[in-house]
Amino acid sequence: MKVIIVGGVAGGASCAARLRRLDEKAEILLLERGPYVSYANCGLPYHVGGTIEKEASLLVSTEQSFRVIFNIDCRTNNEVISISPDRKTVEIKNHLTGEVTSEKYDKLVLSPGAAPIRPPLPGIDLPGIFSVRTVPDARNIREWLDRDKDRSVGNSFTGVDTVSKPKRAVVVGGGFIGLEMAENFIHRGLQVTLIEKLDQVMPPLDPEMARIVKRYMKRHGIKVKVNDGVAGFRKTEDGSLEVLTESGKAYSSDIVVLAIGVRPETALAKMAGLEIGQRGGIRVDERMRTSNPDIYAVGDAIEVKDFVTGQWTLIPLAGPANRQGRIAADVIAGRDSRFRGTQGTSICKLFDAAIAQTGTSEKALRQLGDTDYEKIYLYPNSHAGYYPDAKLLIIKILFRKSNGLLLGAQVLGEEGVPKRIDSFAMAIQMGCTIYDLEEAELSYAPPYGSAKDPVNFAGMVAADVLHGDMPIMHWESVGDGFILDVRNPPEVTAESVPGAVNIPLPQMRERLGELPRDREIYVLCRSAQRAYYATRILLQNGFMARTLSGGMMSRSHSVSQTNS
Amino acid sequence: MKVIIVGGVAGGASCAARLRRLDEKAEILLLERGPYVSYANCGLPYHVGGTIEKEASLLVSTEQSFRVIFNIDCRTNNEVISISPDRKTVEIKNHLTGEVTSEKYDKLVLSPGAAPIRPPLPGIDLPGIFSVRTVPDARNIREWLDRDKDRSVGNSFTGVDTVSKPKRAVVVGGGFIGLEMAENFIHRGLQVTLIEKLDQVMPPLDPEMARIVKRYMKRHGIKVKVNDGVAGFRKTEDGSLEVLTESGKAYSSDIVVLAIGVRPETALAKMAGLEIGQRGGIRVDERMRTSNPDIYAVGDAIEVKDFVTGQWTLIPLAGPANRQGRIAADVIAGRDSRFRGTQGTSICKLFDAAIAQTGTSEKALRQLGDTDYEKIYLYPNSHAGYYPDAKLLIIKILFRKSNGLLLGAQVLGEEGVPKRIDSFAMAIQMGCTIYDLEEAELSYAPPYGSAKDPVNFAGMVAADVLHGDMPIMHWESVGDGFILDVRNPPEVTAESVPGAVNIPLPQMRERLGELPRDREIYVLCRSAQRAYYATRILLQNGFMARTLSGGMMSRSHSVSQTNS
Repeated sequence: MKVIIVGGVAGGASCAARLRRLDEKAEILLLERGPYVSYANCGLPYHVGGTIEKEASLLVSTEQSFRVIFNIDCRTNNEVISISPDRKTVEIKNHLTGEVTSEKYDKLVLSPGAAPIRPPLPGIDLPGIFSVRTVPDARNIREWLDRDKDRSVGNSFTGVDTVSKPKRAVVVGGGFIGLEMAENFIHRGLQVTLIEKLDQVMPPLDPEMARIVKRYMKRHGIKVKVNDGVAGFRKTEDGSLEVLTESGKAYSSDIVVLAIGVRPETALAKMAGLEIGQRGGIRVDERMRTSNPDIYAVGDAIEVKDFVTGQWTLIPLAGPANRQGRIAADVIAGRDSRFRGTQGTSICKLFDAAIAQTGTSEKALRQLGDTDYEKIYLYPNSHAGYYPDAKLLIIKILFRKSNGLLLGAQVLGEEGVPKRIDSFAMAIQMGCTIYDLEEAELSYAPPYGSAKDPVNFAGMVAADVLHGDMPIMHWESVGDGFILDVRNPPEVTAESVPGAVNIPLPQMRERLGELPRDREIYVLCRSAQRAYYATRILLQNGFMARTLSGGMMSRSHSVSQTNS
Repeated sequence: MKVIIVGGVAGGASCAARLRRLDEKAEILLLERGPYVSYANCGLPYHVGGTIEKEASLLVSTEQSFRVIFNIDCRTNNEVISISPDRKTVEIKNHLTGEVTSEKYDKLVLSPGAAPIRPPLPGIDLPGIFSVRTVPDARNIREWLDRDKDRSVGNSFTGVDTVSKPKRAVVVGGGFIGLEMAENFIHRGLQVTLIEKLDQVMPPLDPEMARIVKRYMKRHGIKVKVNDGVAGFRKTEDGSLEVLTESGKAYSSDIVVLAIGVRPETALAKMAGLEIGQRGGIRVDERMRTSNPDIYAVGDAIEVKDFVTGQWTLIPLAGPANRQGRIAADVIAGRDSRFRGTQGTSICKLFDAAIAQTGTSEKALRQLGDTDYEKIYLYPNSHAGYYPDAKLLIIKILFRKSNGLLLGAQVLGEEGVPKRIDSFAMAIQMGCTIYDLEEAELSYAPPYGSAKDPVNFAGMVAADVLHGDMPIMHWESVGDGFILDVRNPPEVTAESVPGAVNIPLPQMRERLGELPRDREIYVLCRSAQRAYYATRILLQNGFMARTLSGGMMSRSHSVSQTNS
C-alpha cells in the first residue's frame, strides 16, 4: 500500500508517524511545499517577540528524522500541484529544482492547512506588511525590525535619533494571532495599535467578555480600535506606512501585521472534485474520508462538526489537527477510529492573563435562534482569598434551561484559567450538567483553589437558578426596573446605580416594609452573593425578586454600558 | 422546625447557611465548641510559616455574621456534651461561663470534625510538642517560635549565640499537613527532620511516586526518615526535646509537630447510639442521614463511599465536607439531594512543586485483590517544549484492563499540575475511559500546554497498551529479562542499565538480525517514546517485544531500585 500525504505540520506529520507505527510495510510519501515538514506555528508570535529566541526551537521534526526514525519518504519544498483521482496520481513540483514528477497513490491524505487571508486592498503588497503563518514569515518580520535597528545603530554615531528605527506597529485583526502579536510587539518596545473590523476583539468570546479583554489590552499600552475595517495601505513621504480604515482614519506605522484569519486551502481538493462544505472547508465524514473513497483530509483545511451546536465549523487549531491526523492513519490501517467533532476549546495568553473558552457562546446560540439557555457570571478568586496573591477570575457559563446541560464556558484571569477551562472542557465533552459541576471533586489546597472551586461554584449558582431558588436578571434587560442594592453604604458611596434603593443585607429582614410588592425587585451587590441571600429572604417573604447576575462586577462591562 | 448543628468550620457552617437560604423560617442553632465558628484550617501551616501573615485572615465567617446575615443563633465556645435521641435534646456546655443548658431539636446535624491523633507515647505532653488543627494550635506554635526568638534577641547583647534559639524542628508524619509544616519550617529558617512510620511519604500516592516526593524534599533541605515510628519524647539537659524512634534513633529538636493524621470525632455519635462504620467514622446514607432518622452527620467525622473502589473510606477534606453540609441542608428542607461519594482528589504544595492525586491508587487496588488494571507512567512537558521554562510532569494513571475505564491518576511537577489533575478528576467523575482522554479537547497555547496535552497523551499511550499496539513491561517485573536500549550512544554512556543491548532507534530496521526471536525483548529509552516506536518495528517483524513503561525516567524511582 502506498500512501501519499500532502502537507506536514500538525495534521500531516502526525498522520504519517501514526501510519508508520501501525503499518511497518506501507510505503509512505510525505510532501511539504514549505522548507520545514513540521514546525511550531503556535510559537511564531513568541519568536517575533523574542521569548523564543532561536528559530531552530520551532522546528519540531526534520525531514531527516522522518526518514531515519519512521522510514518515511519525506520531501520538503515539494508541492503537490494537481491530483488525478481517476488515475490516482499526484503531480509534484520540486521548488528547488523546478522539476515536476508524478506519483501514484493507493490512499491520499490532504493536509494542506489554511492560508492567511490577504484581502486585495490597495497597497497590501507594500514592504513592511506581513502575515504570521510560517517560519519564513517570522524570520521576515524579525529581519524587518532588526534591519531598521541596524540602521538606527548606524545613525547613533551622529547622536541623532533616526526616524527609521521601528517604533510603531499596527496589527490588523483581534483574534488569537492578533492579540499575541500585539503583546509581542509591546515586548519589543513598539507602540502598538490593533484594528478590528468586528465590534469586539477575540471573536469566540461573547461581546461583554471581549470588552474586558479590550480594556486589559489598553491597560497594557495597546491602542485598540474596534468596529473599523482596513481600507488600504500607503507609503508616506518619510518612508513609513499608513493604514487607512473604512471610517476614514489613518494610522502611521513602521510595520503592519495582518492577522485577519485564515482560509482553508481547498484549491487541490476542488481540482480533485472533492465536496466542499458550507463553510468553505473540505467536507469529510467522521473517519476523515472525503467524498472520494481513496482521499482523506485533515487539519485546518477541513470542516468539522461542532458537537455542542451540531453545526459545521472551521477550527484551525493544532489539537484537533493532530487528532484528525491520527484518525486518518487509523482508518487507512483498517481500524474503526472516529473523530467526535469539536467543542472549540481555546486559550490565549495576554500579558499576565489568559483568555479561554470552550463549548458554544451566547452569540452563537442566538444566531441559531436557540432560546433554551441561561447564563451566569461569576467573579471568584483564583485560589483561597486568605492565601496571598489570589486573582480575580471572570467566568461566564451557558447551560440548557430545560435540563441543565453545560453548553459553554468563558474564563478570563491572571491565574488558574487553564485549570478551570479544562475542567469545563472535560465536562462538556462528557455531557455534564451543571449538577455534575456542583459535585465535581477538584483539587484543592489554598495556593491553587478553594474548597468550593470556581467550577463547583458555577454549578451551584446555575443550579440555584434552575431550581428557582435564585431567579436572575441580566443587566441588558433591567431597563427602568426597581433595583435594590444590598451592599454596605461605603460601597454604595464609591459607585452606585442611579435610582437604586439601598438596604444593606444585614438590615433586610427589618426593612422589608420599605419594598414594593407589586413589581419585580432586582437585587444587586458587588458580585451577586449577598444579592442571592437577599433574594432568598425576599422570595420567602412573598416578594417578586431576581438577583442581578454578576452584580456591579457585571455592570461595568455589560452590553447596556456603551461608554467603555 | 428547629435544627441544631453541632460544629462549625466547613461542614456545619455550610449546612447552616444553606439551610437558612432554603428555609427563612427554620430556627437554626449553630454550636461550635471552639472560639471560631468558621476558619480556614487548610491555611494554618502557611500562617505558621508566615506566608499568611495575619491570624485574622484565617477567619472565614464570624459568629456575628451568622447572626446578622443568616439570622442564625450561632454560639461559639459552646460544646454539645451529650445527646438524648429519645427526648431529642442536646446538653450544651458554655466554656466561658461553665453553664450547662439543654436544647430541643427537630433535626440534629453532627459536624464534629476529626481530632489530631496523639498516641499515648512517653513524653507526648512535653512543652514544645504541637498539633496543627485549630487557630489556637497555630498561635501556640508561632508563640513558641517567637518566644524563643525573643530570648535569642536578649542574649544577642552578650554576642553569644544562644542554644534556646529555635533551630531544629521535627515533623512527625509525612502526609499533607506534615509536608506543609516541613516546608513552612524551612521557610522560617529551621533545620527540619520529617519522620514517617510508613515506608513512604504522602500515603495516597503509590510508593514509587512517593519516592520522587521524598527526593524532592531532600533536595529542599528536609531530612526525611521513613519506615520509623516515633516511640517517645524526652527533654534533654540543654532544654531541647529529643524524639525517640522505634528503631532506636534520637533526634534533637526545639519544636515537634505531630501530623500523624486525624481520627473522626465520634464520641457524641456513640453516646447517641448511632451506627459507626468499619473505618471508625459515623455511618450515613447518601442523604447524610445517620442510623437515627432525625440525626444527620457531615464532614471529617463520617465515613464515605469511594465511588471508584466502592469501599468505605475516611476523607477529611474541606471540599467534600462543604458539599455534605449543603446536602444535609437540602434533605432537611425536603429536597432530594444525594452525595455521590468521593474519589479522593487532593493536592499539596511542596516548595515549587505540586503533588496531586485523584481516584484510586495501585496499592489500594492490590489491597482489594483487584487485578483487572494496568498502569502507565509518562514524563511530558508542562507546556510546549519550545516555549521557555517548561517543567517536567510526572504522571501515573491506572485504568481497567478490561474496558479502559480510568481508575486513578497521580501527577507531580512544578507547573501545570492543577490543570491536569482536575481534568483527570472530572474524567473519573464522569466515568471516562482512556479513549475519552485521547479525544479530550483541552486548552492549548504554547505557555500552557501542548497540542497533545499530557492528558491526551496519557489516553493515547494507555490506548496503545489496550489495543495491543504497545505491550508494556514494568521495572519491578523485568528480572533478568532481555533489555534493548534504543537510545543514542551518548545517552547510554551517561547512564546505562547493566546487561542491556544498545541499538539506537535509527539503526533498528537494519540490525534486527542481532536480536533474539526466542524470548521477550523489553525495549528501553529515556521516557518510552522511542521505545514504543521500536516496539512497533519489532512486533511487526515477528519479535516478542514490550515497551518498558516510563523508560529510564521510571527506573530511577521504580520499586526495584532500593538504593534511593
